This record gives sequence, C-alpha cells and structure tokens, in this order.
Amino acid sequence: MSHNSEFAIGIDIGGTHISGAIVNQKGIIKPKKTIRFIKPPDGKQGLRLIKQLIKGLVRLSSRSIGQLKSVAGIGIACPGSVDFDKGIVLADSPNLVGWKGTNLKKPLEGTFRLPVFIDNDANLAAWGEKTFGAGKNTKNLICLTLGTGIGGGIIINNEIYRGSHFYAGEIGHIKVLPDGPLCSCRQRGCLESLASASAIIRNYKFFTSSQWAGINSAKTVFDKARRGDKTAKEIIKRANYYLGIAIASLINIFDPQMVILCGGLAQSGNILIKKVNQIVRQNIMPHHLREPHILSGKLGPDAGLLGASALVLKNYQ
Amino acid sequence: MSHNSEFAIGIDIGGTHISGAIVNQKGIIKPKKTIRFIKPPDGKQGLRLIKQLIKGLVRLSSRSIGQLKSVAGIGIACPGSVDFDKGIVLADSPNLVGWKGTNLKKPLEGTFRLPVFIDNDANLAAWGEKTFGAGKNTKNLICLTLGTGIGGGIIINNEIYRGSHFYAGEIGHIKVLPDGPLCSCRQRGCLESLASASAIIRNYKFFTSSQWAGINSAKTVFDKARRGDKTAKEIIKRANYYLGIAIASLINIFDPQMVILCGGLAQSGNILIKKVNQIVRQNIMPHHLREPHILSGKLGPDAGLLGASALVLKNYQ
Repeated sequence: MSHNSEFAIGIDIGGTHISGAIVNQKGIIKPKKTIRFIKPPDGKQGLRLIKQLIKGLVRLSSRSIGQLKSVAGIGIACPGSVDFDKGIVLADSPNLVGWKGTNLKKPLEGTFRLPVFIDNDANLAAWGEKTFGAGKNTKNLICLTLGTGIGGGIIINNEIYRGSHFYAGEIGHIKVLPDGPLCSCRQRGCLESLASASAIIRNYKFFTSSQWAGINSAKTVFDKARRGDKTAKEIIKRANYYLGIAIASLINIFDPQMVILCGGLAQSGNILIKKVNQIVRQNIMPHHLREPHILSGKLGPDAGLLGASALVLKNYQ
Repeated sequence: MSHNSEFAIGIDIGGTHISGAIVNQKGIIKPKKTIRFIKPPDGKQGLRLIKQLIKGLVRLSSRSIGQLKSVAGIGIACPGSVDFDKGIVLADSPNLVGWKGTNLKKPLEGTFRLPVFIDNDANLAAWGEKTFGAGKNTKNLICLTLGTGIGGGIIINNEIYRGSHFYAGEIGHIKVLPDGPLCSCRQRGCLESLASASAIIRNYKFFTSSQWAGINSAKTVFDKARRGDKTAKEIIKRANYYLGIAIASLINIFDPQMVILCGGLAQSGNILIKKVNQIVRQNIMPHHLREPHILSGKLGPDAGLLGASALVLKNYQ
C-alpha cells in the first residue's frame, strides 16, 4: 500500500440506495455511482451490491485516476451500530433489516486487496463535515443527522467517539418528553419520536385525520406550513422545540465548539436553524450564551460518503 | 521537582467547609484537616483559607512524610467551572459566590513552589473514583455527584473531558421535563430541579404545606419514606424516575462502561441504586441491556479530594 495514495473509495448505504464515489484528498468527488432499490437488500445481498458498485467505480475512473494502486482504501458508511475494529454490523436499523452480524470488512478486503473501514453513517457524516465541510478546524463537535430517524456523531479531541461497545452517539434517543410517543427503539419520548421526519409526517396525519394519504414526506408538511397551514406550523414548531431542548442538553453536557445539523430535514434551511438556535439560547446554561454555534452541514447527502473517504485518507496520510 | 514524589496535597472546596489531605499513590489519606465556616468565603478569603489549610497539613505531616520535597504538588477540587489551564474559577456556583475570576493557581504556586492543578469538583470526583474507587480500570465512565445540586464528570479514553471552554459535564442541566420547575441555572426542567436534594426538600415542603419547617435535609425525607410516609415515597419515586431517564439518555449518548453515583444522595445506598437501575433498563436502547453498570461511588465525601490528589500524582508519575 502506497502512502502517497491520493484517492479513497467512499460508500454510503441507505434505505433506498447505495452510493459510492472516488474521492480525493480535498474531498472532491471524481465519479459517483448509485444503485437504487425498491426492496432494501439484506446484508448478504448488500455486500454483493457494494462489490458491484466498487467494480463499476473502478472501471469508470480508470481513465481519471489510473490504476487501483492510487486508491488508499475503501470507507463505508452504514446505518446502525458497527464494530469498527472488526467491520461487523452490530444491529439492524429500521430501514435496513438483515444486516446484523454481517462482516463487511473481511470479504471486501479479500476481493479488492485494499484496507476497508466501516463505521456508523452519522459518525461518518460528522467526520465528513469536520474534514471537508462546516466543521473544519473544529476539535469537538456534535453532528445530528435529521431524516427518517435521527442519528448522531460525536467528535472529541479530533477523533470520532465510538463509546465502549460502539454504541455511542444515539442522539436520536435522548429522552426529551417522559412518557412521550413510542419510538422506533421501542422506548418512549426519544427525540426521534418527536422531531424526525417520520414523527412530523405521523403527527400531521394524526391531527388532520388519515384522509391526507398524500403526505408521505416531511417536505410536504414544511411546504404546507410555509403556505400558512396552522396544523403544519404547530407540528413543525413542536419538532423544533424538542430538537432545541435536546441540543441544549448536548451543549450543557459536551461544551462543543459547534453543533452541525445534517440530513434531509436540515436541508429545509435557515428557517429551521434560526428557530432551533433561538430555543437553544433560551435553554442552555447562561455561560454558554457566548457561542452556541449551530450550523447546517455543507456536504448535503454526500456527508457520509465523504466522511467514509476521509477516514481512509486520514489513516494513510 | 522530584519525579519520585510519593505524595500530593488534595483540597476540596465546599459550601460549608474546605477539606485538605495529604494523599499517597495508593489513595491513602495520611493527615486530613477541615476548616468549617458558617458564611462561605469569597474567592480572596477562600484563597487565604486554602493557604492556611495547606500550611497546617504540612506541619501536621512533617513527621509522617518528612519534608515538603516529597510532595509532588497541590490539587484543588472547586465547585463551578474552572479554566484548568490557567487555574482560574470561571463561574460562581449557587453555594459559593464571589469566586468568579479568582486565580488559585498562580498565588499558590508562588507561595508553596509546587505545581498546582485546579478542576471542577465533579470532574475530580469522577477522577478519584476512576483512580482509587469504583471506576478502576475503566476507560469511559460518567460520574454524577448527587447533592444540593447535581454535577457531572466525564472520563473519555482515560482522560477527564473538560469540553471546549471548560464547561462540559453539566449533567445536572440535562433537560428531562420540558417546561418543568425553575432550576438554579435559571432555566426550566433540568435534572437538578427535579432530582437533587434541594428539589426533594422543596417538593416535600410544597406538598405538605410549609408547616414542615423541620425538613432541611433530603435525608429526613428519605427517612420519612422508609417509615411509610406516602408523600415522601412519591417524591423520591419521581426524583429517581427523572434520574433514571437522564442516565438512560447519557448511556445512549456515551455508551460508557460505567455510571457512578457519588455525593450525599448516593449514600442513601442500595435502594436508590436498585430503583434507578430498573428505570434505566426500561429506558435505554435495547442493545445496551447487556450491561448498564450503575454503581455507588466508593470514596464517599473524599472523592473530590482524592481525585485532586490523583490528578497531581498522574502528572508526576
């Protein structure tokens, strides 16, 4: 393995598609490729798709980056908890079932003769934003991925903090409302059950009765709110409130330099950030008032994939 | 400074007294000395008391440990936030006013010609338990100090985590009940406003009308609960519930090996630990069910003082 390798292959596994890209040291994506599916694959099928994707990428890029030897390794962002040392998926996630126990590292290292790093997607979104995005030059930061679920990545002293058993960062499962709604984790009152896209959709359907079968994305609810729909406005207000409360707790606990909001919901832009910032300011301990830097991520849906690549390149600098 | 120094001087600053001790590498306290006061000193007066205490300790110990040269340094546990690098108190705490801005490090180093380390008392309780107590051989742990207020110390990768501006670890100010009671930090619904000794006393007075002027310690409420007083039982049940909820969030966020409960309230013993453990088990993400190790601290009221000494000895090993 050359230590002068300039490129990494980054892979992001999602509930509707797997994306891959060849990424350079500056975070610039050379070719990107996506495989979409209707029915999510299980771990075994997923592994096959990842191999297929990497082979496709290498073919695509042979002209632009030359041989595989200029690639330092493969980084993979995966939903759920991952044993980072062994490269094994530790738990299924609601959108991706049948991956628990899948070893992604060993078979991919065998096939491609490259080092492979697998980590939780929110950890890697945080790492991507730190390396190439909103969190550059930040030592301690927290990243929330706001989508169907809510994930979290924690960077402490310039390292991803993975916890004692690779379960750290479950920010979506901070309790913000005792005895609140049932969450995907089977507990109650978690942030995810109150402020995720699925919570927003579920609440809108509930409060307007189920005739609104057309509501299948949080974006629709945001659009309705923008057009003055009172129920939609109230639901988003509440989601923002709980998100602000959770971030206030996180700032009181971690005293980070920055909190970055990534994922589909964060892309609803400044309105969200402004409101959440307001709630956080009203709820953190007064001495923190100096700088609760809450920002939108800069890498959009590529955060995980870029973080996965950055992890590879960091290990081969 | 000899690198073979065997002893440290540990100081613990509290709302009713300042304690000091000479401590060896094994955490054994040689002489201990306490200065009590009715009206808490401000920073300037406090500094004078600390000097007086150290001089007294050195005199007391001259026979047992010989000259000052076998003392590696002075460690000080202080309520509120502390700039660890500069040794300056950053914020007053409810029980200790007029300390903000006090530089403890410089004048003490000048007087005693020894290195001086100052840190938040909950950070040092955590460090004490890790070095000499319940948290030995633990890489990642969280320590809660349950008393008049609720403090927190976070150990990550065998180091005290102090945050980006020395404000980390404010576990007492995790939001557990939106729009809950007013807290000492002027915000609402913090853990401290629901589960601290002062919250327990306040609630008991409130629910039984103010005629119970005799209730001035949480222990009295615990004793009443033990004797079957329904109001006391309900108040303690609720305090334990919110404590359990907050610890569940902490486990979901940090995935620590251990959560240690220190301070006056934790010494109410097994009943508390057992109840809290139950609530935590019911509220953490299922994959954590394997081991939510929640334990009582082993060092009792000496945790901060021993942690302060351990910090000195760590830096001179």
